[in-house]
Amino acid sequence: MARILLKNGEVYADGSVTKADVAIDGSVIAGVGEVAAGWQADRVIDCTDKLILPGFVNTHTHAAMTLFRSYADDMALMEWLETKIWPAEARLTGDDVYWGTLLAIAEMIRSGTTAFADMYFFMDDVARAVAESGVRAALSRGMAGVAPTAAQALTESEAFYRDWHGGADGRITVMMGPHAPYTCPPDYIKKVTALAAKLGAEIHIHLAETTGEVAGCVKEHGKSPIALMNELGLFDLGVLAAHCVHLSAEDIAILKEKKVRVAHNPGSNMKLASGAAPVPSLLAAGVTVGIGTDGAASNNNLDMVEEMRLAALLSKVATLDPLAVPAGQAVDMATAMGAEALGLGGVTGKLAPGFKADITIVDMAASHWHPRHDRLSLLVYSAAAADVHTVMVDGKVLLDAGRLTTIDEERVKREAGARGLRLVESGRKP
Amino acid sequence: MARILLKNGEVYADGSVTKADVAIDGSVIAGVGEVAAGWQADRVIDCTDKLILPGFVNTHTHAAMTLFRSYADDMALMEWLETKIWPAEARLTGDDVYWGTLLAIAEMIRSGTTAFADMYFFMDDVARAVAESGVRAALSRGMAGVAPTAAQALTESEAFYRDWHGGADGRITVMMGPHAPYTCPPDYIKKVTALAAKLGAEIHIHLAETTGEVAGCVKEHGKSPIALMNELGLFDLGVLAAHCVHLSAEDIAILKEKKVRVAHNPGSNMKLASGAAPVPSLLAAGVTVGIGTDGAASNNNLDMVEEMRLAALLSKVATLDPLAVPAGQAVDMATAMGAEALGLGGVTGKLAPGFKADITIVDMAASHWHPRHDRLSLLVYSAAAADVHTVMVDGKVLLDAGRLTTIDEERVKREAGARGLRLVESGRKP
Ligand SMILES: [Zn+2]
Ligand SMILES: [Zn+2]
Repeated sequence: MARILLKNGEVYADGSVTKADVAIDGSVIAGVGEVAAGWQADRVIDCTDKLILPGFVNTHTHAAMTLFRSYADDMALMEWLETKIWPAEARLTGDDVYWGTLLAIAEMIRSGTTAFADMYFFMDDVARAVAESGVRAALSRGMAGVAPTAAQALTESEAFYRDWHGGADGRITVMMGPHAPYTCPPDYIKKVTALAAKLGAEIHIHLAETTGEVAGCVKEHGKSPIALMNELGLFDLGVLAAHCVHLSAEDIAILKEKKVRVAHNPGSNMKLASGAAPVPSLLAAGVTVGIGTDGAASNNNLDMVEEMRLAALLSKVATLDPLAVPAGQAVDMATAMGAEALGLGGVTGKLAPGFKADITIVDMAASHWHPRHDRLSLLVYSAAAADVHTVMVDGKVLLDAGRLTTIDEERVKREAGARGLRLVESGRKP
Repeated sequence: MARILLKNGEVYADGSVTKADVAIDGSVIAGVGEVAAGWQADRVIDCTDKLILPGFVNTHTHAAMTLFRSYADDMALMEWLETKIWPAEARLTGDDVYWGTLLAIAEMIRSGTTAFADMYFFMDDVARAVAESGVRAALSRGMAGVAPTAAQALTESEAFYRDWHGGADGRITVMMGPHAPYTCPPDYIKKVTALAAKLGAEIHIHLAETTGEVAGCVKEHGKSPIALMNELGLFDLGVLAAHCVHLSAEDIAILKEKKVRVAHNPGSNMKLASGAAPVPSLLAAGVTVGIGTDGAASNNNLDMVEEMRLAALLSKVATLDPLAVPAGQAVDMATAMGAEALGLGGVTGKLAPGFKADITIVDMAASHWHPRHDRLSLLVYSAAAADVHTVMVDGKVLLDAGRLTTIDEERVKREAGARGLRLVESGRKP
């Protein structure tokens, strides 16, 4: 295993930025600060004029939906799903998902993301893309109790857990992925919960995304989606809940008490006009809130630098409080809290000895990085994904001064580009 | 004057994207479509896999405030102004403004902006930066009637108009810049209006940015800022009104009737928690709405690609309507409507024969441009400023395949960077 020294950089750790070196031994961070003179590195990366961060954690996406990027925008949610996305998804093959996921991973690595939480199907093909590309991921097979595949999804989820949990040198963890309360009736949620408890798996679910979902749940079950999931015992497991836009004070109290981790998706929530999640209230209550892009069909990119900025901006305008979600908090959400959201707290998301060497190095050379009054403000309010210079996961360099080392990007763009167009074309009536 | 042919590109014109060539003769566009076989170009630019757009028009900024980028964020507006921005601005010199403006222009050209509306002071130095860099700008000397410099600002504005209106080969137009109703009492607005009418100049003003401003105006004058300015005769001139966040139906009717053009600043309005401007209502009423970044102290970059996206996303979430400000409308706001907002309709903002050759060429190679179901959706919802490849103004190439041709960017970053830090340092008590 190689030893890498990141020299002369400015390091984000413990909430602030200081000049320090970072020593990496194999897959883990050996030290941050002054590295002992005798410490021999196989490779030294000069980080002059660069900011060294924990890699971003994208806490909610559907990676292969890059295939539908720009296919159908500016539409109402149900029309979009029923006339565009679902018919196109019905034509997907495992190979389509593989190439779409690789396209997503290429874009994520380029924008500094080192770990992501995914929910989709053909998950063996997703896992194959993760394994080959070297990134870290928490993967779940989406399960819908109302679909004809309801029983099959449970069987596949169990097999997928047994095949891949802890796979790819530990970079892959597997979660159970009940899609949402409105697609998973109580009986089905109970089955999923029982399966997860049996396997010792955690849960990834969509919750309280739209007012329509909450109203429908209240009408049908007499309680909010959060209260319903709590009653069904889902929250007795470790849960990553995407969206959580429409919450009551009681809902927030439940999320806190049950240590549910929230994936906040500001870009998707804005584009689909879902609303603004009460992020300041969640953080004030002590809930862990990470940031996610959601799929590229509803964002339409997988750029965590932009998403971090949107998290800060959306909370400010939604609460009319310019102090809401300050820059430092947005960075914390995109890194350490994101790792906790994936169940990987203590493993990744921080630059500290013993943590995995999942690291993003940002070049501060561009004009928009000047003057440098405050690095974290610059990162959150001014930086761009294109500033990301070098990225490593598990101590392996995946983006080397702008060059992807594990992905044949030209081929991926060609394959995923053609497959995306074909999936849509083949659905058109002559 | 050189003749340039843009070959093999995809051209945005009349609201859609088609394969076409663009012929440029000197400072103007000679043709779009099939260029006659005999037409001889001095230079052919191959635009394969590239999108050719009218350059973006940034309808509201304070360019030299790049000096304060990241200096003081996540603060309440008045505390921010009184304890941070105004004391630092009081120490500015003309040379500071020159270098800060050049830094802004470098960033704007790199992100595809070919024209901008600026309001600041030391405007001769701003004009110098515009003239040297080759960009197009509508410049105004900010005037505050409540300031000790109130009378001086009128004199300077008149001199600046006589010296620079139509200057730099016609690339500079000069507007009168009364800062806002809360800094310009009615008597002062009348003086500005009289001066503008005498000169034949247009107006650039901040209007209805915050609820506090509107409430204060109603309390003091018994009417909204829009109604007050209308009553004072300001709207009988051509007016570019920045922000217009808090508007009544009557306000919108006045803006429409008086043909006031609005500069919408979604990033600044979000970051300062000002609110969401009623853009869909303004557009439905037939008001011209351009997009602006505002100054880099409240954004914190000058990236019109991002701003175009924010315009679409903010309107969707604010109205809870996913159909609000669709991609094509956002592009129109960032280009043709932006040009009209600056009083440059018919001059720039469109790719059509006779228009100035103010052109932005965007590279569609990056992963986030795949698959390509819809180019305008990709541009608005997925693209990044870093995709901007080549930019020209008046037929002169200012960014040539990623290289700035008129600005010594390394020197500008060094000068502006050091000056920005010094302005702040010198204000610190020992
Ligand atoms: Zn989702
Ligand atoms: Zn302004």
